[in-house]
Amino acid sequence: MKDSNTIRIPAVQMEAEFIRILLKHGFREDKAKLCASVFTDNSIDGVLSHGVNRLSRFVKYVINGLIDVDAEPELAHSSGAVEQWNGNLGPGPLNAFKCTERAMTLARKSGIGCVALNNTNHWMRGGTYGWKAAKAGFVFIGWTNTIGLMPAWGAMDNKLGNNPLVIAVPYGDEAIVLDMAMSQYSYGKMETKAMENSILDFPGGYNSSNELTCDPSEILSSKRPLPIGFWKGSGLTLLLDILAAILSGGLSTGEISKKKDESGVSQVFIAFDISKLGNFPSIQNTISEIIADYKESVPVDEKSNIRYPGEQILKIRAANLQDGILVNREVWNDILSLE
Amino acid sequence: MKDSNTIRIPAVQMEAEFIRILLKHGFREDKAKLCASVFTDNSIDGVLSHGVNRLSRFVKYVINGLIDVDAEPELAHSSGAVEQWNGNLGPGPLNAFKCTERAMTLARKSGIGCVALNNTNHWMRGGTYGWKAAKAGFVFIGWTNTIGLMPAWGAMDNKLGNNPLVIAVPYGDEAIVLDMAMSQYSYGKMETKAMENSILDFPGGYNSSNELTCDPSEILSSKRPLPIGFWKGSGLTLLLDILAAILSGGLSTGEISKKKDESGVSQVFIAFDISKLGNFPSIQNTISEIIADYKESVPVDEKSNIRYPGEQILKIRAANLQDGILVNREVWNDILSLE
Repeated sequence: MKDSNTIRIPAVQMEAEFIRILLKHGFREDKAKLCASVFTDNSIDGVLSHGVNRLSRFVKYVINGLIDVDAEPELAHSSGAVEQWNGNLGPGPLNAFKCTERAMTLARKSGIGCVALNNTNHWMRGGTYGWKAAKAGFVFIGWTNTIGLMPAWGAMDNKLGNNPLVIAVPYGDEAIVLDMAMSQYSYGKMETKAMENSILDFPGGYNSSNELTCDPSEILSSKRPLPIGFWKGSGLTLLLDILAAILSGGLSTGEISKKKDESGVSQVFIAFDISKLGNFPSIQNTISEIIADYKESVPVDEKSNIRYPGEQILKIRAANLQDGILVNREVWNDILSLE
Repeated sequence: MKDSNTIRIPAVQMEAEFIRILLKHGFREDKAKLCASVFTDNSIDGVLSHGVNRLSRFVKYVINGLIDVDAEPELAHSSGAVEQWNGNLGPGPLNAFKCTERAMTLARKSGIGCVALNNTNHWMRGGTYGWKAAKAGFVFIGWTNTIGLMPAWGAMDNKLGNNPLVIAVPYGDEAIVLDMAMSQYSYGKMETKAMENSILDFPGGYNSSNELTCDPSEILSSKRPLPIGFWKGSGLTLLLDILAAILSGGLSTGEISKKKDESGVSQVFIAFDISKLGNFPSIQNTISEIIADYKESVPVDEKSNIRYPGEQILKIRAANLQDGILVNREVWNDILSLE
């Protein structure tokens, strides 16, 4: 990846550019800073698709009026440890941050807390909220619905979202963070692979003859990506959409898909305050033992790298913090010229 | 399936036989009845692997002392809407029933309730508890860990459980119930397919040359079944195990796997009382609209049957209730001779 097309940008410099751009687009200073930190942290963690590579599209949504920079999420209904919030079409990462914090507050009181958020925008990288909650000592389960972009099992048309699911637990000073969409590969990954003229390691969807294929161009053309586990992921993503819609009182994938652009999505944030559990003193030890056992797996071959979810992020983060964030040069020039 | 090897047994007759057997093995009458109803209902729903086909193995566990028929689950620790219970190695379905009910009770009070259960036994079919909660008007999320039976992504040996996950929502008088293990195919399914000399529709694991295969015999021999979505299901099942172990204070898959037989598993039961939500009056309408939209998917071909999770169960249930439960003749004769 170290070629003339890429450049290393120090995190502080990137964050400063993001703040500059967001302020120009009407963000209040504290919100510009928090929003910029989410896009910067995602870039530091190597999730460029929801970091530096995404910022210009995020700004376009602001310009087009899909994101209301001044909107604040507000409590719509409370029933004890479950709260329903209205995102008022504010910036997705800010709404999601607030609801993660609120779920943690509810959990501090009741052991568990759930905030269901409707009428919000793309939260960018779900893992952001998992890392945040887990590093604060909470177990986190959260998911979002999305616009339709995957067919139901046995179907041609995209009735299902890929509805990313995040599960996170504290692990020492860091966290174990699973952040997975219900499609086998993201469109972003398939587009990158197609541009490189390379194929997927495993079938990622169907070609026009209804055969499974590893060719990303064929899948991008058929628009039939594969759910994880075939019928299983199809069922799981349907249930995640139903739960997001009914718990938040918000839009389902089907309703979001009627819009031109993805907006007004529904999200769920569940936090557990594990410091309230009877076995709290031994929890970190339990997690360490599970991971130690997992890492003792016999690898298939010397190329096998048996990692827990989030493990690789730590290495990428360290490298990007030390050497600067590895970014496509053209993307970075676009950021610099963004008014 | 209608051949001389199968027989139709009326549900009441099956349940009576199960009660007879369980009473003989020391179950108190109310517990025998409840346990028999779980095994019968699973059979009515066509899940014979956790119904009539499983009872003799369940009884063997009682005889071997792995299941304590008199044990009652007891509250170990309470922190508001989260409770930790000790299953005291009682019958898995009875413990799970009790904890489902308890999660519903907690949800009635706090909007959401979570019971984490340790030291319990196999709950048989997770869907049982999803159907129960959803038909009572609750949203349900639950899972169990299991003994190790699936390798981590990139590994040879079975460090991971298949940790079935259940998500259920009320749907009219019935329910939508997702009940999925994290392996692409169960060992039971692969054994049946192997006996029939037929192959799996999709790769279900690896052969001894580390190639993906649809041949169930090869997978049974390599003992390397495939997680759903390759690395994604591997990560998800690891997180489900971590959460089950730390929330319940119970054993992890790694610890359970040190035993000769699966016993002392950890489970999580989460219920939402949706009658407490601000949008409760419109929830059934929302679910109906999502399902209607889903069912309007354009099928790939005339063989496509675009079903929601649990839909097929309703048809099987109706047929088995009307005509008697379709059972393997040999299995039924074994039940009749079970002392």
